[in-house]
Amino acid sequence: MTVKALIFDVFGTCVDWRTSVAREVAAVLPGVDATAFAVAWRAEYDPAMARIREGGRGYVALDELHLENLHRVAARFGVTAPDSLNAAWERLDPWPDVVAGLTALKRSRIVAPCSNGSIALMTRLARHAGLPWDCILGADIARDYKPKPQVYLAACAALRLAPAEVMMVAAHNDDLFAARAAGLATGFVPRPAEHGPGQTLDLAPEAGWDVIARDFSDLAARLPA
Amino acid sequence: MTVKALIFDVFGTCVDWRTSVAREVAAVLPGVDATAFAVAWRAEYDPAMARIREGGRGYVALDELHLENLHRVAARFGVTAPDSLNAAWERLDPWPDVVAGLTALKRSRIVAPCSNGSIALMTRLARHAGLPWDCILGADIARDYKPKPQVYLAACAALRLAPAEVMMVAAHNDDLFAARAAGLATGFVPRPAEHGPGQTLDLAPEAGWDVIARDFSDLAARLPA
Repeated sequence: MTVKALIFDVFGTCVDWRTSVAREVAAVLPGVDATAFAVAWRAEYDPAMARIREGGRGYVALDELHLENLHRVAARFGVTAPDSLNAAWERLDPWPDVVAGLTALKRSRIVAPCSNGSIALMTRLARHAGLPWDCILGADIARDYKPKPQVYLAACAALRLAPAEVMMVAAHNDDLFAARAAGLATGFVPRPAEHGPGQTLDLAPEAGWDVIARDFSDLAARLPA
Repeated sequence: MTVKALIFDVFGTCVDWRTSVAREVAAVLPGVDATAFAVAWRAEYDPAMARIREGGRGYVALDELHLENLHRVAARFGVTAPDSLNAAWERLDPWPDVVAGLTALKRSRIVAPCSNGSIALMTRLARHAGLPWDCILGADIARDYKPKPQVYLAACAALRLAPAEVMMVAAHNDDLFAARAAGLATGFVPRPAEHGPGQTLDLAPEAGWDVIARDFSDLAARLPA
């Protein structure tokens, strides 16, 4: 079956959250180790979603979780962070190949994020980073968080496409295992700098994904037009 | 309060459904009066949504309603229409000012459709017509149809903006009355050719809308940057 739409993980796959968040932290909290703060903030991400995925809490947009996590991490670092720092997640910079790659991919296929970020967050981030999405899909559409299968399936349903007509693209093998289990095609693009020097996670594909590409331009070249 | 996002009615306000649907009808049903068929097809639109708005039927995307209405109208015209004709609604042409106007408006504000069309339909239509939306809002987000207040409010909530920070732009006074009642700012742009020669409906604003503009470029000029 032909792939008619590509849906993308965003944090890590399209944008460099670690460097970008650290820059925003440094601008408003000059006393702290900005990179350590960014990494600690991001580390709160999955546990916060886990409670919602497991049913212990109703759906709350990632913006709210980020804000709660910001204040928890700031307390741990012994500082008080302004709520406005939460917008750091709307100002993440894309990896260098992303805008050109998405623009090329968009010529013949629908391109959309399938992120755990909200529509609001993804919309503002796209404006900042110049990501030329056709529409915004992801957690807000499903009112649940990846890697729950309904998030991938809700994205396909919103496009009125069968899962096999949609390719999930991610730098994270766990995202692709979940997407494949839901019936989607899979594309892997490594992001060896996501976690900084010494990264050990997701340096290579851990399964025979449908497409394995060096970057988004290579992905565009490997998909028949 | 400053308007941070503009949300748009699409059928009639951004695109010329009547001429475009007639063109698609003429291409596959050469024997019928294509304009009459387009108008009859569109006339089934509101009654089909009314049942859903009133709770007599669960939410069904507009694509489904269009398809049901296509076959009902075709029977009335004594012809059999292929299901593929339903994609006519994804191939509507924009009014001449729309792409440049939206591009100008997008420089300083979020722009998104708030249509009764589905995410799938609006995504494909945007690709056809070159509409540079930041995201797709509307009926699919609210799982209900305009002019129900929750459709406008769900669009604001998805953007994490207060209703007063969002302007609904439409060529239809009834859309703006409903948006204003929900607390949104309002912008009117007349489309005197929507219904062809002899149009009597919506030729002029019927209330003191916050902005009244000749076209989308005029709207961009009237909104402070």
